[in-house]
Amino acid sequence: MTELQNQFELEELAAAYDHWYETPLGAFAEHQELGALRQLLQGVSRQHPIVEVGAGTGRVAAWLAREMGFPVIAVEPSAAMRRHGERRTAGLPVSWVSAHATMLPFADASHAGVLFFATLEFIAEPRRAVREALRILQPGGILLLGCLHAQSPWAALYCWLGRRGELPWSHARFYTPEELEELVGAPAEGRTEALFCAPAAQEPFEEADAAGRRAGNAPAFVVLRWRKP
Amino acid sequence: MTELQNQFELEELAAAYDHWYETPLGAFAEHQELGALRQLLQGVSRQHPIVEVGAGTGRVAAWLAREMGFPVIAVEPSAAMRRHGERRTAGLPVSWVSAHATMLPFADASHAGVLFFATLEFIAEPRRAVREALRILQPGGILLLGCLHAQSPWAALYCWLGRRGELPWSHARFYTPEELEELVGAPAEGRTEALFCAPAAQEPFEEADAAGRRAGNAPAFVVLRWRKP
Repeated sequence: MTELQNQFELEELAAAYDHWYETPLGAFAEHQELGALRQLLQGVSRQHPIVEVGAGTGRVAAWLAREMGFPVIAVEPSAAMRRHGERRTAGLPVSWVSAHATMLPFADASHAGVLFFATLEFIAEPRRAVREALRILQPGGILLLGCLHAQSPWAALYCWLGRRGELPWSHARFYTPEELEELVGAPAEGRTEALFCAPAAQEPFEEADAAGRRAGNAPAFVVLRWRKP
Repeated sequence: MTELQNQFELEELAAAYDHWYETPLGAFAEHQELGALRQLLQGVSRQHPIVEVGAGTGRVAAWLAREMGFPVIAVEPSAAMRRHGERRTAGLPVSWVSAHATMLPFADASHAGVLFFATLEFIAEPRRAVREALRILQPGGILLLGCLHAQSPWAALYCWLGRRGELPWSHARFYTPEELEELVGAPAEGRTEALFCAPAAQEPFEEADAAGRRAGNAPAFVVLRWRKP
């Protein structure tokens, strides 16, 4: 964890991460990924905050608060990322907490929803992180895991970058939905998918995305939902 | 190399390798990949044998001899693979040699053509293997590298399988065409590409393949050609 924490402490990495989402394909990807998350938030009460673990630069936290009407507790161990996130969510019902996924500063059964969005991939002890999330969830609370799919063209690119030692990919691990279910120890009650085109896709991206489905591509991003018994 | 040699000594692996090419998608993939190789063999004299390094179970050697009219020297260190290969190429102008890619039993400048077809990925010392291929090539001789592309959806699947410890993928490394040029130390004079659909593609595969191009997928397979100065 220390090593992982350190890499996201790099100011340039936080900026580069944000920058990609400002590109045309990055914006399309984010829109598709948030759409997949939105579907699994249907019917979830806005009365209780969502704890976002690994909230990074606050893009998802800002969207949850502004577009979806959720209060958010944004957990992020990297000060560099948190600085970006605090700026982005100023004036929104988002509170920031410095903590690790494997040691959340919340009581047992104290929260109604926990979200990991493109976070679990960078956690060295994913099983511990999932256990910790389940610990702070109330019975009936929901766990949402949004992850890069291990078999998509994007995972190929990221594996290749990781192999060349590029941060943050050199420390990333990718999962299939089935592996995520194995990590949680139960079948998900809901699952959505997003982004079937490849990193080299050309506009219009909607067409490229439809083509990716036809090509048999795995989605770049999957969101799974569990309910704590 | 010893470890790599050992894994391909497994009889089951040799059989499984062959078996995949008998599936509908495997047959389509092989047809596409050989088509990419065929394009780069145009104008190459059939008077001189092609040395195929890592000839495996002889599928490509048999095709070179039967369909393309080339004599072939098939180099393969694994006895299990070679047994399959010798059976497959019986009656064809294919001679089998037991040797490693990094130590070929041929004199300097003794051959007109050397081919690696889905082989370099499994060689622990690719730079040495390329140097050795260039050593045995005559001036004007051609080097052909047919490799899985590091950024295709297939590489994602194989990386994932490798990470789970599955042979032969746990020992594989994938390259981009640019990395292959860097390995050889010169820009290729020719390059072809094949198979843009993903491993989960559905029939008709021609349609899935066209869709993969539109989706921005990297090709599963590239063939590059160099001429020794």
